[in-house]
Amino acid sequence: MKIDQGIDMYSWMVDLFPICRSITGPGVRKTLKYISKILPEIKVLEVSTGEKVFDWVVPQEWLIKEAWIKDSDGNLIVDFANNNLHVVGYSEPVNCWLDLDSLKKNLHTLPEQSDSIPYVTSYYNPTWGFCIDYEQFQSLNSGKYHAYIDSEKVNGVLNYAEFVLQGESEKEVLISTYICHPSMANNELSGPVLAIALARWLKSLTTRKYTYRFIFVPETIGSIVYISKNYKHLKSNVIAGYNLTCVGDNRCYSYLPSRNGNTLSDRAAKYALEKANCEYIEYSWLDRGSDERQYCAPGIDLPIASIMRSKYGEYPEYHTSKDNLEVVSPEGLSGSFDVYKSAISAIEDNIKPIANILGEPQLGKRGLYPTISSKKSADSVALMMDLLTFSDGSHDLLSISKITKAPIEDLLSIAIKLESEGILTINT
Amino acid sequence: MKIDQGIDMYSWMVDLFPICRSITGPGVRKTLKYISKILPEIKVLEVSTGEKVFDWVVPQEWLIKEAWIKDSDGNLIVDFANNNLHVVGYSEPVNCWLDLDSLKKNLHTLPEQSDSIPYVTSYYNPTWGFCIDYEQFQSLNSGKYHAYIDSEKVNGVLNYAEFVLQGESEKEVLISTYICHPSMANNELSGPVLAIALARWLKSLTTRKYTYRFIFVPETIGSIVYISKNYKHLKSNVIAGYNLTCVGDNRCYSYLPSRNGNTLSDRAAKYALEKANCEYIEYSWLDRGSDERQYCAPGIDLPIASIMRSKYGEYPEYHTSKDNLEVVSPEGLSGSFDVYKSAISAIEDNIKPIANILGEPQLGKRGLYPTISSKKSADSVALMMDLLTFSDGSHDLLSISKITKAPIEDLLSIAIKLESEGILTINT
Amino acid sequence: MKIDQGIDMYSWMVDLFPICRSITGPGVRKTLKYISKILPEIKVLEVSTGEKVFDWVVPQEWLIKEAWIKDSDGNLIVDFANNNLHVVGYSEPVNCWLDLDSLKKNLHTLPEQSDSIPYVTSYYNPTWGFCIDYEQFQSLNSGKYHAYIDSEKVNGVLNYAEFVLQGESEKEVLISTYICHPSMANNELSGPVLAIALARWLKSLTTRKYTYRFIFVPETIGSIVYISKNYKHLKSNVIAGYNLTCVGDNRCYSYLPSRNGNTLSDRAAKYALEKANCEYIEYSWLDRGSDERQYCAPGIDLPIASIMRSKYGEYPEYHTSKDNLEVVSPEGLSGSFDVYKSAISAIEDNIKPIANILGEPQLGKRGLYPTISSKKSADSVALMMDLLTFSDGSHDLLSISKITKAPIEDLLSIAIKLESEGILTINT
Repeated sequence: MKIDQGIDMYSWMVDLFPICRSITGPGVRKTLKYISKILPEIKVLEVSTGEKVFDWVVPQEWLIKEAWIKDSDGNLIVDFANNNLHVVGYSEPVNCWLDLDSLKKNLHTLPEQSDSIPYVTSYYNPTWGFCIDYEQFQSLNSGKYHAYIDSEKVNGVLNYAEFVLQGESEKEVLISTYICHPSMANNELSGPVLAIALARWLKSLTTRKYTYRFIFVPETIGSIVYISKNYKHLKSNVIAGYNLTCVGDNRCYSYLPSRNGNTLSDRAAKYALEKANCEYIEYSWLDRGSDERQYCAPGIDLPIASIMRSKYGEYPEYHTSKDNLEVVSPEGLSGSFDVYKSAISAIEDNIKPIANILGEPQLGKRGLYPTISSKKSADSVALMMDLLTFSDGSHDLLSISKITKAPIEDLLSIAIKLESEGILTINT
Repeated sequence: MKIDQGIDMYSWMVDLFPICRSITGPGVRKTLKYISKILPEIKVLEVSTGEKVFDWVVPQEWLIKEAWIKDSDGNLIVDFANNNLHVVGYSEPVNCWLDLDSLKKNLHTLPEQSDSIPYVTSYYNPTWGFCIDYEQFQSLNSGKYHAYIDSEKVNGVLNYAEFVLQGESEKEVLISTYICHPSMANNELSGPVLAIALARWLKSLTTRKYTYRFIFVPETIGSIVYISKNYKHLKSNVIAGYNLTCVGDNRCYSYLPSRNGNTLSDRAAKYALEKANCEYIEYSWLDRGSDERQYCAPGIDLPIASIMRSKYGEYPEYHTSKDNLEVVSPEGLSGSFDVYKSAISAIEDNIKPIANILGEPQLGKRGLYPTISSKKSADSVALMMDLLTFSDGSHDLLSISKITKAPIEDLLSIAIKLESEGILTINT
Repeated sequence: MKIDQGIDMYSWMVDLFPICRSITGPGVRKTLKYISKILPEIKVLEVSTGEKVFDWVVPQEWLIKEAWIKDSDGNLIVDFANNNLHVVGYSEPVNCWLDLDSLKKNLHTLPEQSDSIPYVTSYYNPTWGFCIDYEQFQSLNSGKYHAYIDSEKVNGVLNYAEFVLQGESEKEVLISTYICHPSMANNELSGPVLAIALARWLKSLTTRKYTYRFIFVPETIGSIVYISKNYKHLKSNVIAGYNLTCVGDNRCYSYLPSRNGNTLSDRAAKYALEKANCEYIEYSWLDRGSDERQYCAPGIDLPIASIMRSKYGEYPEYHTSKDNLEVVSPEGLSGSFDVYKSAISAIEDNIKPIANILGEPQLGKRGLYPTISSKKSADSVALMMDLLTFSDGSHDLLSISKITKAPIEDLLSIAIKLESEGILTINT
């Protein structure tokens, strides 16, 4: 397996992993700054605290400098400096002594995964708390503890970024990914690094039929911001798109449909997964859980689907400290890159051939048909004949591929040859 | 199982069982009079002998006082006073002596159910006859017999009744049942008694969205009369409905679709049967056999389906003297009541939610979302989120329930809460 | 099995088998002349060499008088006089001495079917060659060989024929078959002889609803000629049709759909095959290979399907010297005749009944219903009631037959009876 792309993507993840991201604040900015070094064309945008976006209000920035729990002897029990999951995301500041029972009310654990620190946030209700593994939780001795969180919420901005790669057409493919989780590998960073790799690949192409819009947003609030600011444009132009998340591990593939279920994005995703010739899990819209919730909401209804490796919520490391750089791999990322490349290529190549000639064309005189007709001679041109018979204006290449099981690139090259012979017209 | 309703229904059947009903005449009137004691609002209507209704003519009334067969010694062999199935329904009068062979030509039996008296009628061809069990038939000695039927056909009326229970909307749910079989429990009386119980329940409700039209008619000719007199009204107003028959035994459930097969009645019936969590037999329109034949006839096409227990024609006691009070039970009737109540409630509650907000609403600020976001926190609000994602104007609660497997009442209460928060609008 | 038709058809095949047909020339003319003796009404038509038809040009006639290979001792090794498959169809003339290796470059064999002479043509690329069985090929000794083909290509005509049998309606059923293969029994002559038999049967009928258009054409180029000359007429008038080929052996049946897949032809074909109560192979449009390729091409889209016995390309003797009179049989032909007769009858009888009466009609007063109503009395009229319930203007007899499993002729006779009673109207 070719994993060059995977090695690059993995190395970016290594750099981005330690940053303490949240939905707003310096972590997001650091992340976008890093991305802009690889993809200098990205445009970093912002929206101010307090601005209304659809039903939501842009929250304050959360600034955190230091956070720990010490025992009565001054020993460090928990330190945010060691793992940024240790503090509940968006925690209020605190500085107090508590006995063990009171402390425990502000500790979050995962008893069923006792060696993992859970990832917990409280964006819309002021509170404070620490997250630790259950083994440590159980080993805590009674006594007094000093809980200290030096955090602050301030008016500022919510940052996000977009990168628009112009194509021949104004019609767009939207690639969205999120940048708001702290140290989380599969369920966060795999998305942005794949987005970068896909953007780099698409940039390298000499021509692109469609325009590509990459967006890097905090999950939920960020996609809501983005849609609210670009609603008309997206509704008019987006013909397909994907939400990139959980694309880094090397287990199975997964497919989550758009709400509609049969958009161009869905058809291309299923085509690419079938072509990859690997088993994959087909989820239903009921299993949604990321920004497709916004993109496909009633009245928004953009054609956004997801191809994933292990889907969020479905693998044990999800939303724990174990969703780290060991869960993901260059191979896993590379596989996702290949499948998305295949899906995007299918969208690019998904032309509609329309026959110019009534009846079968005389292919022999054009050197396109075996000159000797014997028992099986027509087999060699079967795919060309199948393409022709479905060049009726109601089949695009995705549907012809579904019928014939042929790869779209093979169909496209036949269509181009036949167009050059004047036999059919390619409609894009 | 709560069977209070079943006990009431069963007791009404006990009272109604002995009456010798036919499609016209005093039996129908007695039956309607009894019903009007429990349901005083019913309006008893009549149409005169000889009146043309669609392709049919209202038949004369059949009056029968006495009927028997005696042997040459004057011993009573068969006596209508013992069982009103003994005489072929609508028999001509007769008073003659016959030898055994001639008598047998006028005797109806069921050789394959030798201890049962068959139920036989001849409404549209004048004839006379007796029905006896096959065991008795075989035991008859040769000799002379005296056959005597004191019956008469006279111009009169065909009676039927309706009870309209006004709701907030002029749109109606039609509940039809028949009152023309003599002593027959499952395939007759179970229908009217369930209709009464459902009417009593619906009356007890403080509000009803829809208007309910209960009709009690002789089968076939009665429904034809009713449709012919109310065609325009029914076509304009009936949005759902059921034909109640064979709802009294305690065996499986059955479902017979409307001719269309996918009306609101069909969808609600299947919802209620699935919710009852019992196996049921799904019949096809080819298995029809009661008044749905008229309600769903081409050009009439009302949305009338049937939920039954053991379907007519499919259980051994059908149309014999064994379809008596032993076949039916309070439990059986009560189960039917519950399933119909569930189907009717589903129709009442089947609103269509339409989102007022683009993107997901911010539920947290309304106290509708867990404030702490951790690994599985969204599970608790999954159904609310599912309702919201399908609040697109093309899904009603029956279809959302089919997708989510959630009971309609749960979906409705979520919808009401979300409407009160201004998040969606409920369309009825 | 009644095989009278089969015996006639087989005897015509015996006569036609030896003729050396090609897509043009005297073989086609001899064949059409023979057909015109049995079916004097056929109109033999011609189109000149060089005429443009859609994307094609009518080819020259190929005249062949003699062809052989002799060894250096003058022994006849291969002689066209023994089997007209020995010469590659449309071969150029040749007269030369070659050594074995050079000769072999112009010999065609079937190593995997070593005792069969392959059928090979080269219509659109000038070349010459002989076809022999592989056993003979391997037994050839080295040495010099004399290859001699006395053939000629001359300007002339392409012949084809049509036979139009007028019906009550201008709407047409098209029956097409081909006449361009030399001695080939199943994959050629079975088609024309079945066409003749079907024409003879249809002629014998006193009335026909539809007009029948039989055409006898060289495969591919002939159907293209025919469509190009009759495009508008065919598009306006043809409501159904079949391409007759491979209908002579006595193995399984096969069905190849039209490109559309659900035309009247397809529905009638599947009806007839189901009714024949035999297993059959249902192919897909991807398996097409005969003139349906032209009739169903984009923009032409006539409703042409095929019922076959062993499909071309799928049985071992196909396109070899073994596709001879032993592969086909009177029984095989007769079976095909019966299935096509059944399909065509279904098309003729496929009326649409529309009820004239609201509600069920009172059938008793018309003597159409059992006068005594007992437990199972309605069973005898179930089919009549089913026909009535679907007489709603959206079901034709093919669809009612599919629902009820009843033969169309039974449904039609019921519909006629009910029409005579004024109960329904038959729409054709």
